[in-house]
Amino acid sequence: MTKQFTLYSHPVGPNGWKVAQVLCELGLEYQTIMKEFGGVENGMKTPEFEKINPNGRIPALVDHSNNDLIIWESGAIILYLVKKYDPEHKFYPASLEDQALVDTWFFYQMTGFGPYTGQAVWFKVLTKNQNVEAADRYVAEVHRMCKVLTGQLEKEATGWLVLGKCTIADLSFLQWVRFLYRLGIDTEKEYPTLHKWKEAMLARPAIQASTEGEAWPEL
Amino acid sequence: MTKQFTLYSHPVGPNGWKVAQVLCELGLEYQTIMKEFGGVENGMKTPEFEKINPNGRIPALVDHSNNDLIIWESGAIILYLVKKYDPEHKFYPASLEDQALVDTWFFYQMTGFGPYTGQAVWFKVLTKNQNVEAADRYVAEVHRMCKVLTGQLEKEATGWLVLGKCTIADLSFLQWVRFLYRLGIDTEKEYPTLHKWKEAMLARPAIQASTEGEAWPEL
Repeated sequence: MTKQFTLYSHPVGPNGWKVAQVLCELGLEYQTIMKEFGGVENGMKTPEFEKINPNGRIPALVDHSNNDLIIWESGAIILYLVKKYDPEHKFYPASLEDQALVDTWFFYQMTGFGPYTGQAVWFKVLTKNQNVEAADRYVAEVHRMCKVLTGQLEKEATGWLVLGKCTIADLSFLQWVRFLYRLGIDTEKEYPTLHKWKEAMLARPAIQASTEGEAWPEL
Repeated sequence: MTKQFTLYSHPVGPNGWKVAQVLCELGLEYQTIMKEFGGVENGMKTPEFEKINPNGRIPALVDHSNNDLIIWESGAIILYLVKKYDPEHKFYPASLEDQALVDTWFFYQMTGFGPYTGQAVWFKVLTKNQNVEAADRYVAEVHRMCKVLTGQLEKEATGWLVLGKCTIADLSFLQWVRFLYRLGIDTEKEYPTLHKWKEAMLARPAIQASTEGEAWPEL
């Protein structure tokens, strides 16, 4: 039987898991189709998948309960989900001012923390550190952003990024903070405040329910 | 006399101009404070400015008519502006489904087209192409994204990215498409569909009104 949503994702790529986590937190039922990177069979950069996402990337989400609406870009997907399926404003607040606060950190993940961590992993890990200058550039930027996140958590002192509760700002960062191990960053030792936040996120039942199919490559 | 908004921006950096364009399209009054990159005097990475944006980047916006609300990240700023100051839904639609469509392309600019074009300019122009492998990686990605944009404009065939009219999706891309000249990309020759869209955007009175203080470095 078809569930309400189909999520196109990847076992490793963090952005699909961000969406899975939000779906689970909202108690929504979905099935996952795992895609491969690139133009291979079952790949993201194939004419078949580019009908779903012309940019050839995961995640993409289909809402079968809403005329098979297709959305891609994890940020657009998550905003749609909370606007339509979070009427109690558990993860996205009601007032425009509070929304702007959540959106600020949400976009910071989407435009900064995610892309630059991804570039750091590319140059340091996936291409085996063959371009040390580029790897160093992005690893330094990742450390800088970890300090910005730490500063925000310590300023708020509630355990959450904003508003004293778990919002889509926190949910957008989790998988990328977990991904830092691939750069050899030990959050427990180097960023204890961020690590404590990560552990609290991982203890949430919905997060634990979202992990089926996750793969974490060895270093 | 203080205008309604203060915009922190930079003469060259595209993300501040995106916000200026939206402010002008909405007919809102603002004053601009130009900041320098880095930790220099009047810099973005100074304790003084990090009170406004802890990430030390432009743009940031202060809404003096709303308890001096501070928002940073251009995506968060633009969503706030249209949700609060576009009641007729000229640039951001009313229905969640149409919003998801606009958001998809809006986030694509924020997470992909902007960051990767920025990296291409860094490696090819600002560091004088000293790291050819990294420059080539990002320039190739920029060309790929120009093809995705072209494909969308040709599929829609309305002159706009989505919904047959100018939305914040179009407004988010303009300054970055203009920025392509810095990579030696001649949109008129290489991407005529994208060039025609750019010219239509530049002909808009509000866009023309937004340009005071813009700087375009020579190649």
